[in-house]
Amino acid sequence: MKTILVIGIGTGSPAHMTIAAIDALNRADVLFVPDKGATKADLADVRRAIIDRFVTGAPHLVGYAVPRRDAANADYGQGVEDWHNALARIFADLIAEVPEDGTGAFLVWGDPGLYDSTLRILERVEAPFRIEVIPGITAIQALTAAHGIALNRIGEPVLITPARQLGPIETDTIVMLDGRLAFRDADPDLDIFWGAYLGTPDQLLISGRLGDVADQIVTTRAEARARHGWIMDTYLLRKRQ
Amino acid sequence: MKTILVIGIGTGSPAHMTIAAIDALNRADVLFVPDKGATKADLADVRRAIIDRFVTGAPHLVGYAVPRRDAANADYGQGVEDWHNALARIFADLIAEVPEDGTGAFLVWGDPGLYDSTLRILERVEAPFRIEVIPGITAIQALTAAHGIALNRIGEPVLITPARQLGPIETDTIVMLDGRLAFRDADPDLDIFWGAYLGTPDQLLISGRLGDVADQIVTTRAEARARHGWIMDTYLLRKRQ
Repeated sequence: MKTILVIGIGTGSPAHMTIAAIDALNRADVLFVPDKGATKADLADVRRAIIDRFVTGAPHLVGYAVPRRDAANADYGQGVEDWHNALARIFADLIAEVPEDGTGAFLVWGDPGLYDSTLRILERVEAPFRIEVIPGITAIQALTAAHGIALNRIGEPVLITPARQLGPIETDTIVMLDGRLAFRDADPDLDIFWGAYLGTPDQLLISGRLGDVADQIVTTRAEARARHGWIMDTYLLRKRQ
Repeated sequence: MKTILVIGIGTGSPAHMTIAAIDALNRADVLFVPDKGATKADLADVRRAIIDRFVTGAPHLVGYAVPRRDAANADYGQGVEDWHNALARIFADLIAEVPEDGTGAFLVWGDPGLYDSTLRILERVEAPFRIEVIPGITAIQALTAAHGIALNRIGEPVLITPARQLGPIETDTIVMLDGRLAFRDADPDLDIFWGAYLGTPDQLLISGRLGDVADQIVTTRAEARARHGWIMDTYLLRKRQ
């Protein structure tokens, strides 16, 4: 049976690669690399840098175009459903390129378990194969490490949420996937720890009382996005102590 | 000024070490290694295996005894406060062993940001030094990777909580630090994904409808704990789809 490796490659720095991820890369006969149609945020360059640096053999590299999710679909769930079905057809073709009893590998930004759809899309592919997942450093860990802070308070919970589900802050909260600057609507007396391009040489960090730094984040974010053509950022909101 | 590195070493497998963590280990003049008084769960052996495998130079290894938190203190907050103050005095002595402008390093289980107190204790040490944090693979990522699942559902939040704060499950929830088997009081119609000794050769995994597998987890956990003399486990609870 074929083996499909889903490898977490960390969040921007090749130094986030684990020994297990490097070993997995080198076990693969075929590496799947998104290229054509990928957004800048897919960071095909970082994937290629990782392959160049850590792969010692000569696996077959197969590029594939990443379709865009129809963000205009008013039904968010249906839009995601259609997108995943389109990707599942592409993944089926990719897996067909893996030799019998061979190994193919997807390189996933961050960790395959956190706001990534590779595992869910693979569930839709009907061909027989076994899946192995290799964990990777997430943007959350890169954020707290860069700020030199703990994610949680002593004995307290933490909520991780996409921005579109952000409600009133009762618990320390990590906000992911925020294209709408949802922090502007939060209590200005919260503390925010914000980071963009985490793990890369372009990393940006801002922290402080939300009411004091929100405008600075909005401006910094807009300037950086214009300069790079894309942005990936995340942040922690917590009540002041 | 001295530099203190707080290095996430992952959760049980030396293969969880990142390139950044290996580089950091090799930058240190002094490595601090808990030994005397450490519980089995502090896994001094894994730390030593990591040092043996990845450190190429000859840094000074300084062992230290880890005091126990007074779990009998009815005031949880005060018990933690006293414990952190005792550790801060120990850390101050450790940092005194680092040469001027030199580098010392703590090796932290998992990620320094997640239910670990090293950063908070270092805040209490009055000597001047700069801190650098290197992220590591957490038990959460090891759990979801081992089960081959995503942590979150599409577009949905996730709560990470210590067992003592576990309430009714409204959101997909990761439970950490559960010595009281809190899952037994949760809705039996939830799904549970449980794992112990994650990342090690002794890894145990059980998943299914909570009502169907809770007894199996309790029994497996008790047997494993008796065999090893300690256990570290975590689990995800989520509503069935």
